[in-house]
Amino acid sequence: MSSVDFKHLYISICTMINTLREELPKLKIIQGDALKERYVHIWKMHEGLNALAVVLPETTAQLSKILSLCHDADQAVVVHGGLTNLVGSTECTSTDLVISLERMNKIIELDSDSRTLIVEAGTILENIHKEVENHDLLFPLNFGAKGSAQIGGIISTNAGGLRVFRFGMTRQLVLGLEVVLADGTVISSLKKIIKDNSGYDLKHMFIGSEGTLGIITKAVLKLVEKPKSRQSCFVAFDDYTKVVQFLKYMDKGLAGTLSGYELIWGNTYKAMTSPPAQASPPLAHGHTYYVLLESLGADPNYDKNRMLELLESALENNQILDACIADGDSDLNWFWTIREDVHVIKSRCAIDHHFDISMPISLIGELISDMKNTLEKIDGVHAVYPFGHIADGNMHLIVDRKSNDPELIKSINDTVYLPLKDVNGSVSAEHGIGIHKKAYLHISRSESEIQLMRLLKNKLDPKGILNQGKIFD
Amino acid sequence: MSSVDFKHLYISICTMINTLREELPKLKIIQGDALKERYVHIWKMHEGLNALAVVLPETTAQLSKILSLCHDADQAVVVHGGLTNLVGSTECTSTDLVISLERMNKIIELDSDSRTLIVEAGTILENIHKEVENHDLLFPLNFGAKGSAQIGGIISTNAGGLRVFRFGMTRQLVLGLEVVLADGTVISSLKKIIKDNSGYDLKHMFIGSEGTLGIITKAVLKLVEKPKSRQSCFVAFDDYTKVVQFLKYMDKGLAGTLSGYELIWGNTYKAMTSPPAQASPPLAHGHTYYVLLESLGADPNYDKNRMLELLESALENNQILDACIADGDSDLNWFWTIREDVHVIKSRCAIDHHFDISMPISLIGELISDMKNTLEKIDGVHAVYPFGHIADGNMHLIVDRKSNDPELIKSINDTVYLPLKDVNGSVSAEHGIGIHKKAYLHISRSESEIQLMRLLKNKLDPKGILNQGKIFD
Repeated sequence: MSSVDFKHLYISICTMINTLREELPKLKIIQGDALKERYVHIWKMHEGLNALAVVLPETTAQLSKILSLCHDADQAVVVHGGLTNLVGSTECTSTDLVISLERMNKIIELDSDSRTLIVEAGTILENIHKEVENHDLLFPLNFGAKGSAQIGGIISTNAGGLRVFRFGMTRQLVLGLEVVLADGTVISSLKKIIKDNSGYDLKHMFIGSEGTLGIITKAVLKLVEKPKSRQSCFVAFDDYTKVVQFLKYMDKGLAGTLSGYELIWGNTYKAMTSPPAQASPPLAHGHTYYVLLESLGADPNYDKNRMLELLESALENNQILDACIADGDSDLNWFWTIREDVHVIKSRCAIDHHFDISMPISLIGELISDMKNTLEKIDGVHAVYPFGHIADGNMHLIVDRKSNDPELIKSINDTVYLPLKDVNGSVSAEHGIGIHKKAYLHISRSESEIQLMRLLKNKLDPKGILNQGKIFD
Repeated sequence: MSSVDFKHLYISICTMINTLREELPKLKIIQGDALKERYVHIWKMHEGLNALAVVLPETTAQLSKILSLCHDADQAVVVHGGLTNLVGSTECTSTDLVISLERMNKIIELDSDSRTLIVEAGTILENIHKEVENHDLLFPLNFGAKGSAQIGGIISTNAGGLRVFRFGMTRQLVLGLEVVLADGTVISSLKKIIKDNSGYDLKHMFIGSEGTLGIITKAVLKLVEKPKSRQSCFVAFDDYTKVVQFLKYMDKGLAGTLSGYELIWGNTYKAMTSPPAQASPPLAHGHTYYVLLESLGADPNYDKNRMLELLESALENNQILDACIADGDSDLNWFWTIREDVHVIKSRCAIDHHFDISMPISLIGELISDMKNTLEKIDGVHAVYPFGHIADGNMHLIVDRKSNDPELIKSINDTVYLPLKDVNGSVSAEHGIGIHKKAYLHISRSESEIQLMRLLKNKLDPKGILNQGKIFD
């Protein structure tokens, strides 16, 4: 860029902020030194934000005006929610205007009969959980970052988590959306109804599009009755085929109450339950696979006995090698801390390299074993820890690597991502593409699919101002 | 149209068929007198089809070529599946080329471990049911027209049915799609995975778009384990508030096994269970509301006792007025025939006028009562029969009217549709818009939503050749 371009850029930046101040005198704008107190990701709170400015609208009308002005001025914007995204979607540059939804955090309406909640996009997931539990209801979406993640960001990335098997991804839990398009147009459909076949279901275009097609401002969420009973057990296997057969057996046996079926590779389980990890192992080390299973039911005594009966019968028939059932809340807490405390694994790594991939359930055993073996032969890889939501075909791998050498990183990425093409898998099960996975998008999606995505992007955001360079260039 | 235009039209029609014959010599084409043996809807099998011709591709490649040729020649096409659509989406004119998917009816792969089925779009729903039941699995989608409806049409209208409450609409049961766009481009994503957040989820654009954005050729369907136990009961109420409270109570009490909660208005129930209807009433006539409830579980004894316990407790607490539980398959058949045999109601009508609307659950009681009262005061309306999937907020009304007087029809439509605007309801819960509901689309959707739909349509089908005039003009 020539010096003339810099001058032009500087003038247009000053103009943009001045225009925003003039047109929206009540809008909170953070710029200059004050940006040092903000950050780009919750794991980088020590690094000040590098951006043109941060604006914090309080209403949809304000956001609409902001986008309309940005659209007119070709001003690139990056949307910030709870900053827990794992694929770089909240990263920005010094010329980006950051729009934070944190001030749009009101719970608008809880309808206990329709079992719906209307919220603003900046509402934190944990606050939603608390609100609905007061009404003996449950918003089933649950994951580690719930104390920071905002529902707008959650919807824009179609987050998954621990109970997708029973309740679905975020997509299945959103009944209606209000979205502001790149040019400031407000598309609002906040219906508290499960069924609406009146024309195209536009909300699905925005769910999971990582803020590149519009900015979500409000949502109608689907709630369920709060379960009265929660049961869990750990089960051990040496044969992957039996892991799948046991999933089918338990799903059938527990009818609609099975809510979680988490697979943990033997070495990962050992790492999760050996010092310095604080948790002791509920089942002995040494098996090839461990499954942590959850049911959410209505009748604690029956549900526990039912799980016990099914486990006993499976043991007798050699379907499983060992099992133990959680006895009360303290056991439940013990069991689930093992699965959820991924930091225990990360702390063992020189540098942790996290994967989130999906593939047909029946292929996971062989495919992940092959990947693990190949990865462990790479010079610079210390260890590989697989675990994941196997009932959804979703596996996570944490690879312990020694350095940030680009060739090492590429070699690791290629080993994990390239085999997914042949099995019709995905390079991103629940985290999205952002900027970190762009180079591998073609593994999951055909050229004609990517062309169609670009066509949508170009039509809805012709100037390309929304989350530039996210998903594709 | 002038005579010169007719000549031009005739020439272009001859050219189109000749081109198809030349380019695709193996393609089956039906035209001329042979069209008299085809029809536009399964209820109009006595009327011959009025169309340019019917083509019956056997492969996606053939269909792609057909659409590419039609696109080049500005040839309008109408897609035919099982012809069970209820809003006129299969209607065509003498200049339309009909594309029937009936020869693309292969079941490609059943994966019992991944619990997925890959099928061609022309596969009939009942054939899918039979195939998966052989593997002790269930495809939960179920409705009256299952013996004719083809899965491609089902997906393109996002059909609902009797078990949406537990298993979702068609949309929730589709994991992947292959679609041919208006210009012949094939978009294929036939993944057997539940989670895929790699870029935009394009399949949702085509699901429910009534064939106006592309033609579905293959689908990956999500299956569930076949339940081992099915229980049902009829329950009576005089107070709508209690109907909703009882839904919440039973949903909580039956945990994940509640699969159906069908509301039948008192007069509808009486009509369904009085001569000439053959079914006798499981509960006495005279109550205001009846609910037919279903659970699908894993343990017949426990499930039945659980339902009995919950009903007894509800009776003691005056939550319900009366109840009876199905004892075995013959009772189940008796109970569900009452609900499913809508022809019993239709046969009572001079002319039956069917509605499919949705609204927040809590408002159904008052809103439907008001509609019923207002309708019954219209000169030319004999009776109004409400019933529906109340757990989904979806009600059907059958209005018995004396004539086809356009003013009478408009008056009835206005009475049902106009109040839905204020309550954020929908003029089409599960049937779609087609051509019959176009005039009321603005009740469910805002002008900006309709603009965005048009934008998508114009971008994906710039020449407007796919199902012209369906959803909007």
